[in-house]
Amino acid sequence: MSTYSAPLKDMQFVLNELAELDQVAKLPGCEEVTPDLVEAILDEANKFASGVLAPLNRAGDEIGAQWADKAVTMPKGFKEAYLQFVENGWPALSCEPEHGGQGLPKTISVAVQEMWKAANMAFSLCPMLTMGAVEALELVGTDEQKATYLPKMISGEWTGTMNLTEPQAGSDLAAVRTRAVPQEDGTYRVFGQKIFITYGDHDMAENTIHLVLARTPDAPEGVKGISLFVVPKFLVNADGSLGERNDAWCVSIEHKLGIHASPTCVLAFGDSGGAVGTLVGKENEGLKYMFVMMNAARFAVGLEGLAIAERAYQKAVVYARDRVQGRAIEGSSGSVAIIRHPDVRRMLMLMRTQVEAMRALAYVVAAATDMALRHPDAAERARQQAFVDLMIPVVKGWLTETGNDVATLGIQVHGGMGYIEETGAAQFFRDARITTIYEGTTGIQAMDLIGRKIAREGGTTLKMVIARMKQTQGELANHANPDLAAIAAELEQGIAALARAADYIVATYGKDVRAVAAGAVPFLLLMGIVSGGWMMARAARVAHDKASAGDGDPFYPAKIVSARFYAEHVLTAAAGLAKEVVQGGASALALDEAMF
Amino acid sequence: MSTYSAPLKDMQFVLNELAELDQVAKLPGCEEVTPDLVEAILDEANKFASGVLAPLNRAGDEIGAQWADKAVTMPKGFKEAYLQFVENGWPALSCEPEHGGQGLPKTISVAVQEMWKAANMAFSLCPMLTMGAVEALELVGTDEQKATYLPKMISGEWTGTMNLTEPQAGSDLAAVRTRAVPQEDGTYRVFGQKIFITYGDHDMAENTIHLVLARTPDAPEGVKGISLFVVPKFLVNADGSLGERNDAWCVSIEHKLGIHASPTCVLAFGDSGGAVGTLVGKENEGLKYMFVMMNAARFAVGLEGLAIAERAYQKAVVYARDRVQGRAIEGSSGSVAIIRHPDVRRMLMLMRTQVEAMRALAYVVAAATDMALRHPDAAERARQQAFVDLMIPVVKGWLTETGNDVATLGIQVHGGMGYIEETGAAQFFRDARITTIYEGTTGIQAMDLIGRKIAREGGTTLKMVIARMKQTQGELANHANPDLAAIAAELEQGIAALARAADYIVATYGKDVRAVAAGAVPFLLLMGIVSGGWMMARAARVAHDKASAGDGDPFYPAKIVSARFYAEHVLTAAAGLAKEVVQGGASALALDEAMF
Repeated sequence: MSTYSAPLKDMQFVLNELAELDQVAKLPGCEEVTPDLVEAILDEANKFASGVLAPLNRAGDEIGAQWADKAVTMPKGFKEAYLQFVENGWPALSCEPEHGGQGLPKTISVAVQEMWKAANMAFSLCPMLTMGAVEALELVGTDEQKATYLPKMISGEWTGTMNLTEPQAGSDLAAVRTRAVPQEDGTYRVFGQKIFITYGDHDMAENTIHLVLARTPDAPEGVKGISLFVVPKFLVNADGSLGERNDAWCVSIEHKLGIHASPTCVLAFGDSGGAVGTLVGKENEGLKYMFVMMNAARFAVGLEGLAIAERAYQKAVVYARDRVQGRAIEGSSGSVAIIRHPDVRRMLMLMRTQVEAMRALAYVVAAATDMALRHPDAAERARQQAFVDLMIPVVKGWLTETGNDVATLGIQVHGGMGYIEETGAAQFFRDARITTIYEGTTGIQAMDLIGRKIAREGGTTLKMVIARMKQTQGELANHANPDLAAIAAELEQGIAALARAADYIVATYGKDVRAVAAGAVPFLLLMGIVSGGWMMARAARVAHDKASAGDGDPFYPAKIVSARFYAEHVLTAAAGLAKEVVQGGASALALDEAMF
Repeated sequence: MSTYSAPLKDMQFVLNELAELDQVAKLPGCEEVTPDLVEAILDEANKFASGVLAPLNRAGDEIGAQWADKAVTMPKGFKEAYLQFVENGWPALSCEPEHGGQGLPKTISVAVQEMWKAANMAFSLCPMLTMGAVEALELVGTDEQKATYLPKMISGEWTGTMNLTEPQAGSDLAAVRTRAVPQEDGTYRVFGQKIFITYGDHDMAENTIHLVLARTPDAPEGVKGISLFVVPKFLVNADGSLGERNDAWCVSIEHKLGIHASPTCVLAFGDSGGAVGTLVGKENEGLKYMFVMMNAARFAVGLEGLAIAERAYQKAVVYARDRVQGRAIEGSSGSVAIIRHPDVRRMLMLMRTQVEAMRALAYVVAAATDMALRHPDAAERARQQAFVDLMIPVVKGWLTETGNDVATLGIQVHGGMGYIEETGAAQFFRDARITTIYEGTTGIQAMDLIGRKIAREGGTTLKMVIARMKQTQGELANHANPDLAAIAAELEQGIAALARAADYIVATYGKDVRAVAAGAVPFLLLMGIVSGGWMMARAARVAHDKASAGDGDPFYPAKIVSARFYAEHVLTAAAGLAKEVVQGGASALALDEAMF
């Protein structure tokens, strides 16, 4: 059985030393964020994640969500776990207090969410999707919609879904065809089929609130004619009690590579007269609302990459310590645990250091999100928001690609046992594989990064970030500590590679957008790797200072080792990626289409 | 439904232009190898692969091999396909004529095997394992053993297995505990349990011949006390007819991530009095025989990486042409097929070019194997054998790691549909995942490469290979064709990186073997990437010459594009990998074991 225990020490280190939680705690509305409170929340969350969610993960994979008679039954134990999750108040953690949320900053909820995702990624998707629906209603719902839905969604009694894509649409929402026909009472009747709807139906909560993209009868074509509707599974009476079953049904679920416990539904709206819905926000502005919520959703999926990597790492370490096989290469009297074999150590280090770098980047971006939302100074808010906007596709794309890399290393550490499903390493590998796809593929993230986030503003924000990276690098360059000096040397080359590639993008995007786009994913990975190197350099610096000041915690020398390994095994890829971006556009596009 | 069609054009190109089939045809015993014969064989094999094996692949995955009452039932259609495979004479293709084989060179059978593996990897494992058992018996079997088993195994009427590992042993065969007790009649009684036995039981053939590693009663400990035995499922009477059922039973099969149609068996020998077996070769020399056969087995698994990559590429291309979604980034009047999107093209090119490079390297090594076996000049045989020995771990390790990379790209091209099992892209991803593990993990290949194949001889053979690479590079440097010149420029840096890393290994192996070992896998990947670049440069040169000579076949310009893409998107990783090898050993090993 695979266990999970939250890496509380590293989480606290990153929160306090890199994400500067003390600064977040000074923000308006964050006055209650004390170190004691944070510790208490993380401890409680770890108990729930490790004690309740993690033990369900394997059975959830084996049994999976089951569909019959237009309804989904969750694997045994999921409903009970969800009810306990609600009872403990976890769904409300970061929601606005107005409708019952606890209003904690994202900097804290990010660590808690990492735990849910690591313990049981399939489970975690339900509250994650609900949170997205809550944000949409908070953003543009009418007072009546807010009063009707938000308290029960924030408490978790009801869950939420996001209904975007359709069979012919994929990631291209311009192709959405679902119709919403206005009625005399001000409601709409919704007709159409939506696919890939996460937790589109299940039996863990008494009602499911669907947010649905659809077109009104006279809507313009394309993305400018898409409106957002709220369509509950059960209509809600004026007194808040559940009314009639709405005409929105789960007509099948997908048979997927992973996240088997998360029902991926085909939802049919209006097969029997029309699903009753109400307009959310203004007509034809649905896509705009989606874009506003997109940062949160993409960030959350990025976090899945980190979380599953942490889980895979923990499992691999346990196996590598326990499994005795083969002599040590330098000679040994008997067989040794495989953690003694240099290549196994390299794999474990590669898993470990990338997990640490991903966590640091994610939490730092979470803190910037809080700053962007709550800082009293408008210029500072704008500066932080620009940083967040730039980094969201990196968090989404790089963390999920790296999460996949780490999960496959997790199998490799297990050798033949890794290929056996009962071992559990394969589940992480299968579960992770969706993360580079949903909420926008890595390619879509990369296009967003080079286009909307870099080229459109001439690289202004990126240049500021590169300047911050250089500052960190400069502080470590030629450091008396040879580890820090070595990290600085490799980081310098990484930053230079990033700057070269960025200059090329800014210079070329307007002239040859196809060539630049062909290098978009290598650029995203380059930016992720160098950003991770920046974070690890900062971490190493703090660790060195703590240790130099006499703190004997072995955590600090370990952090420095990890940072140096990152520099010498991960950052080393930067120059090659930059070459792909700068030189490789033409050859990626040169082949005659008929010759594929 | 996913279809497969062998890439005959590229296969022929590689065979004729890079593997120099005309030279192989001059070898003693290869006189019948004419271009017409080769074409006929490849055409027939393609018909069988695409028409019979490929259509069974998906059902094989969905249904899987089934176990009940100590016996395995294959998925529907597999037995019929196997009987047809036997009837067509495919198993005998490259076996020695003495016992019924057709004696064709490996240079040809490699292309045929690629087809079986691409069409249906799970099916292909049965003849592959049989071939291994045949080689063992050809190598050291007694005349009686040869007469009893070889004709029916070469014809395919009986299949073979290799029984090496045990629950406590993994890759460490020193830990084998299965016992073989001599009897007065000269036979042995075998007792023990073997795991991970591919096609250890099935219903496609009337008998299964197990080759089993076991210890005789007074055998020394460790690898020096392991002997090889042949233990048939059914004993064979003097007249060749089947006798009693032997005491060797499949007591369970594994539930695996992939290759579901290939039964991975736990075999129990001797639970009811002892399984009757006979000694193969000399007592206590079993492991030596395994090592002799290892090259062929590792090569064959490497080929699986190539094959599944080709299959994944074909499927991704079909989807990318068919799937219409999104506008072109440079603007388009309507939605376009996703093959028009630059990032999709980059992914397809990355799949394509790595497939081509892997094929070229594998076929060239196959040709060298024929040369090493049959060349009239002993010095030339030795030279070719040294090349083969050096390259086997690269073919095994790099092709399988790259096969995994290509399979995951195949999912990514499909977007959300790639995550749905019915699409089929996920099967390739799951099937491929075993290839970097069995027949020795990538780590084990890499240790073999840096230790036995490089450090032990001071890098002599590798230096000769690097010299050949430089010669190719020199012929293209500053070429008038800018594509060739660009390829040469990047290849030059790749070769330099390989040479740097090799020098470090040779210089450091004796002094700090753990640090060198920590860089073994990055070195193996570096060597694979640069070897692939060498092959693609040779291919580009030939293509250029053909085109310059007036051959208007669009295959040639396409090959040049592919080679340039390889240089600019794959070879670009070389310098970073060399850094990992040369600088990264210490940081990989520095973390206190307790801190993981």
